Amino acid sequence: MIISMKKGATPEEIDHVRKLIEEMGYRVHESRGEERMIFGAIGDERTKHRLASLEAQPGVEKVIPILAPYKLASRETKNESTVIDLGGGVKVGNRKLLVIAGPCAVESLDQIMEVAAAIKESGAHMLRGGAFKPRTSPYAFQGLMNDGLYLLSKAKEAYQLPVITEVMDAASIEIVSEHADCLQVGARNIQNFPLLKEVGKTRKPVLLKRGMSTTIEEFLMSAEYVLSSGNSQVILCERGIRTFETATRNTLDLSAVPVLKEKTHLPVIVDPSHGTGHARYVEPMAYAAVAAGADGIMIEVHARPEEALCDGPQSLHPSEFKAVMEGIRRIAQAVGREV
Amino acid sequence: MIISMKKGATPEEIDHVRKLIEEMGYRVHESRGEERMIFGAIGDERTKHRLASLEAQPGVEKVIPILAPYKLASRETKNESTVIDLGGGVKVGNRKLLVIAGPCAVESLDQIMEVAAAIKESGAHMLRGGAFKPRTSPYAFQGLMNDGLYLLSKAKEAYQLPVITEVMDAASIEIVSEHADCLQVGARNIQNFPLLKEVGKTRKPVLLKRGMSTTIEEFLMSAEYVLSSGNSQVILCERGIRTFETATRNTLDLSAVPVLKEKTHLPVIVDPSHGTGHARYVEPMAYAAVAAGADGIMIEVHARPEEALCDGPQSLHPSEFKAVMEGIRRIAQAVGREV
Amino acid sequence: MIISMKKGATPEEIDHVRKLIEEMGYRVHESRGEERMIFGAIGDERTKHRLASLEAQPGVEKVIPILAPYKLASRETKNESTVIDLGGGVKVGNRKLLVIAGPCAVESLDQIMEVAAAIKESGAHMLRGGAFKPRTSPYAFQGLMNDGLYLLSKAKEAYQLPVITEVMDAASIEIVSEHADCLQVGARNIQNFPLLKEVGKTRKPVLLKRGMSTTIEEFLMSAEYVLSSGNSQVILCERGIRTFETATRNTLDLSAVPVLKEKTHLPVIVDPSHGTGHARYVEPMAYAAVAAGADGIMIEVHARPEEALCDGPQSLHPSEFKAVMEGIRRIAQAVGREV
Amino acid sequence: MIISMKKGATPEEIDHVRKLIEEMGYRVHESRGEERMIFGAIGDERTKHRLASLEAQPGVEKVIPILAPYKLASRETKNESTVIDLGGGVKVGNRKLLVIAGPCAVESLDQIMEVAAAIKESGAHMLRGGAFKPRTSPYAFQGLMNDGLYLLSKAKEAYQLPVITEVMDAASIEIVSEHADCLQVGARNIQNFPLLKEVGKTRKPVLLKRGMSTTIEEFLMSAEYVLSSGNSQVILCERGIRTFETATRNTLDLSAVPVLKEKTHLPVIVDPSHGTGHARYVEPMAYAAVAAGADGIMIEVHARPEEALCDGPQSLHPSEFKAVMEGIRRIAQAVGREV
Repeated sequence: MIISMKKGATPEEIDHVRKLIEEMGYRVHESRGEERMIFGAIGDERTKHRLASLEAQPGVEKVIPILAPYKLASRETKNESTVIDLGGGVKVGNRKLLVIAGPCAVESLDQIMEVAAAIKESGAHMLRGGAFKPRTSPYAFQGLMNDGLYLLSKAKEAYQLPVITEVMDAASIEIVSEHADCLQVGARNIQNFPLLKEVGKTRKPVLLKRGMSTTIEEFLMSAEYVLSSGNSQVILCERGIRTFETATRNTLDLSAVPVLKEKTHLPVIVDPSHGTGHARYVEPMAYAAVAAGADGIMIEVHARPEEALCDGPQSLHPSEFKAVMEGIRRIAQAVGREV
Repeated sequence: MIISMKKGATPEEIDHVRKLIEEMGYRVHESRGEERMIFGAIGDERTKHRLASLEAQPGVEKVIPILAPYKLASRETKNESTVIDLGGGVKVGNRKLLVIAGPCAVESLDQIMEVAAAIKESGAHMLRGGAFKPRTSPYAFQGLMNDGLYLLSKAKEAYQLPVITEVMDAASIEIVSEHADCLQVGARNIQNFPLLKEVGKTRKPVLLKRGMSTTIEEFLMSAEYVLSSGNSQVILCERGIRTFETATRNTLDLSAVPVLKEKTHLPVIVDPSHGTGHARYVEPMAYAAVAAGADGIMIEVHARPEEALCDGPQSLHPSEFKAVMEGIRRIAQAVGREV
Repeated sequence: MIISMKKGATPEEIDHVRKLIEEMGYRVHESRGEERMIFGAIGDERTKHRLASLEAQPGVEKVIPILAPYKLASRETKNESTVIDLGGGVKVGNRKLLVIAGPCAVESLDQIMEVAAAIKESGAHMLRGGAFKPRTSPYAFQGLMNDGLYLLSKAKEAYQLPVITEVMDAASIEIVSEHADCLQVGARNIQNFPLLKEVGKTRKPVLLKRGMSTTIEEFLMSAEYVLSSGNSQVILCERGIRTFETATRNTLDLSAVPVLKEKTHLPVIVDPSHGTGHARYVEPMAYAAVAAGADGIMIEVHARPEEALCDGPQSLHPSEFKAVMEGIRRIAQAVGREV
Repeated sequence: MIISMKKGATPEEIDHVRKLIEEMGYRVHESRGEERMIFGAIGDERTKHRLASLEAQPGVEKVIPILAPYKLASRETKNESTVIDLGGGVKVGNRKLLVIAGPCAVESLDQIMEVAAAIKESGAHMLRGGAFKPRTSPYAFQGLMNDGLYLLSKAKEAYQLPVITEVMDAASIEIVSEHADCLQVGARNIQNFPLLKEVGKTRKPVLLKRGMSTTIEEFLMSAEYVLSSGNSQVILCERGIRTFETATRNTLDLSAVPVLKEKTHLPVIVDPSHGTGHARYVEPMAYAAVAAGADGIMIEVHARPEEALCDGPQSLHPSEFKAVMEGIRRIAQAVGREV
């Protein structure tokens, strides 16, 4: 960390800050500029959180971190890209792209079977479907819960598709783990640290969705919670951030893909359905995500979007999804990958 | 809700949408403009979530909600301002302002006792202190947990101050409720719906901190989760939103105070410590919050901010806090209130 | 427009608002919901700005616009995509993608010639280079001004590349028009309405860069200024918006591409250099832009980025640009276009 | 500036960067951490812009500025607060608050006279009124232009109020200067650098409105443009920034007041009318602005807001303005100031 003193800091203030840095166990490096003194605190950054409080010390102008605060998630720690096995021969993080598709919510046996059949035929690798739904309104459909998990299992079995579904609290991790091949932590829970620690204790792959106002660094710190709890199977999912623009439900931050691929060894996928919020923008943004270097795509598909109990406006018809799959194949090839 | 058809929608598309609205149980109201047909769907808005999926229907341009989605939190439902009793004669929501103060985290018996004594002397009404701390980094101090709750109880007893502390998951609601007079749900959990439902089942007052990217409408929907679970004692706390500006830790959205006071009967307080992130800006923003009409203020105070295990840069010294209390008294009087 | 009355609006307030709408020349359409009265004001939306002031009327809750405020820029007005001729056989808006490349600023004859030669060889169609530079700091390099225009002309002539350069004020439109084939209005001037009107009076193609906090609707309104001043040759350029994320200089909003292509007939290109601010992210985001459906790409190229007087960190070496061109060709083919 | 090398940077890369820093004329200070080399570049920061391009150099991780990029606007350069004389004995920047009031746009002689009389009576010090109006839509009322300036002069003379009005381009600076006591540069022109340079050449006080996405540092850099062009009379105006929140037209960033008062000696005022966009929120936010330490307030007042040609929803009736003036007096007293 860099500790920059104020222009008019007194010698006593400067000496005191130097002493404090040393007392915290860091080696001090001084750099006297033309106008102010600048300290470098050299040592293990994992415990540097207390250094930040130096800003409260008289004479200190600001405290600037130099090193990334994550360790296990960093490519500096592990250079080789992580490949995660999702079961049934489906993997993510290698040359082959992962395509996850399915409805926002599991609504009925017929509904999930119909969608599973359709996405399987179009070549998707994994089925999504929410059983526990985080809804802004307490009056909106909250998911079929345990019944939804059971229906998802039925579809998994029938179509040989590994499944992913959301886990909203620690209490339901066990039951969800029995049915799902991958646990999804939703955007609203990306800084629900007790939940991150708990999924970190399982041996299931975990998909983390970036929160609406989560910086890339915070996103990686959330991954660090799971990794440091003992679970190395973390997949990151960009799904749009909140900005001033209202033409789309969120602003899909595709730049996050190359930034994340540079900083971490974990697989990175993109959800253009939540990212845009409107079915008609899903196709171009799915193509863009693949072109930007994503390791996979997650798309909402519903046999009758206009009747969906949740997120109908952003769901594709199976026929639209089929066309998207074909386009993705062409883009994947153009960037040296396959679907 | 208003359903606006596209300029070129066919008569069949228009007829089909009209029929769908009726099938969902709404009365349809038509308005043919110069260029397009506009439908109004008239009926109970609580169940209107499915109407949104009409956007997926051919010929539909957009679906525009007219009514606020919250009911119990609305001043249209309950016009009289809610006053909440926090114990020991301390209330919030009436003419007298509530002042909550204390450290970010409970660190030791000495620390919490020293702060409690100081804020009591300066006239604060309630003691804050985190036992369970949501930290961005898994390597940062996570709080003393149950021990922290115990120390908080000691301070409460010694100085006759009701206490507020954060509850991070359903599992700890019971133990936290034993020690705290008010349960705080943090900014990162504002859309942790299972947690909201659980605190809604308690009979403790609940303070909800606005999330970093939570709109005012979503904030009220989170309150609605607690209210509709049976707990009517909800306090709202503005603590800064995330914007592009980096001079402050967050951007304190003080306009949220008059907006919330207009839309809801629930008490609204402000946390200028998290809102600005720097001790030197806390005083002016505390004054501004009172002037804007807040029902209370929550301020971080630490006897030695430069040694704080958490949020040192934004904590006031007890002497600074004392000065702020005096200023708040003057502002309160100027707007017809008292402290 | 929709005018929603408050729940408790009196009959007198409702009558008065109805009368006011009629007095402004609109046909009134009433829709009485279960709780409140809603008016539709039917008539020409171009002059509806005064209706917004009805919000100041007692009893009125809110005023909601239904129609897009732009007319000439809309696909509803002109369905066929606009193709713009940039000179020398170079066009934008049809199946063939436009690639613009060159340095942030013209620095010297050698510099601009070297870059022009390199981008021409790699297959770029148009040369960019700033002569008048909008810099955040008054102490930063402000461009070579008229000399820069002259050097740009030299490069144009030598390599037969049409050129684009920024025009920062009305006073320099004439001189810039003498040298440039396309006038660029920068992000910081996107709501400089006098400048928009003046470039609207020229017969040069105009490239508008989206502002850092410009909504898509406002962006189209800026285009409307140029179009309604008589110049139909407007190109839109997405170049990143300002958000909370700091890993990239801006957040490139690629969703804006399909949204704009849906709403307007004007060509849409993308600038991944400003969009990301770092050379290493330009390649993936250029590919993503083409995959998302952009009509062209604008990329900063400098023979020695580490010595650039402006925007070095985001400039590509000519060798890197060559590789990007090859990748773009493959992506273009995958989405049915060519370079 | 701090130049942080990558963890795996080679000795050659490190040597080369050291050499480059020296060649640019800076003294190099080295700090070898446990994992990476960090350079400090010591020397005059005004010319450090080229250092930023070092990020393009192999082995460089990032370049971090330490010093503020503004000089003349800084309190480090001039510690004493600047007081600006606006004519007629009206000043801003001292203990007495400045209150500016008037309509969004000058509409007619009767309109401006009526408002001027009302605000004078309530105790406002200065009259505002737009003659040249920057409107998002080319079809909206663009102001009375020169006629508006003339009417403004009439009101100035009749009520002995200095006047402020917006200048939108260099061409109209002369005529506006003839009628106005203070030139306003609007939010949309805050990075219109040619305009900033031109108003910097006049001897009129200049009020700069913060742009919707302008950081506080950029805002001060815009002031630096005016100051470095020779005009030391700059007033800063916070008027709301663009965020995700839509309940208010903008998000009034009142924290900017203490931040600016700390960093610069220039006067800082607040415009709660544009900041909130709704008349009913203007009063509490005006009070909050004064409590936060603003040197003045600018409020839109119109005799018949519901008929205003521009910004009706955010304009106060004269009677409402009178009440606000009384409240401001009480708050001012509470913070040791007067109106």
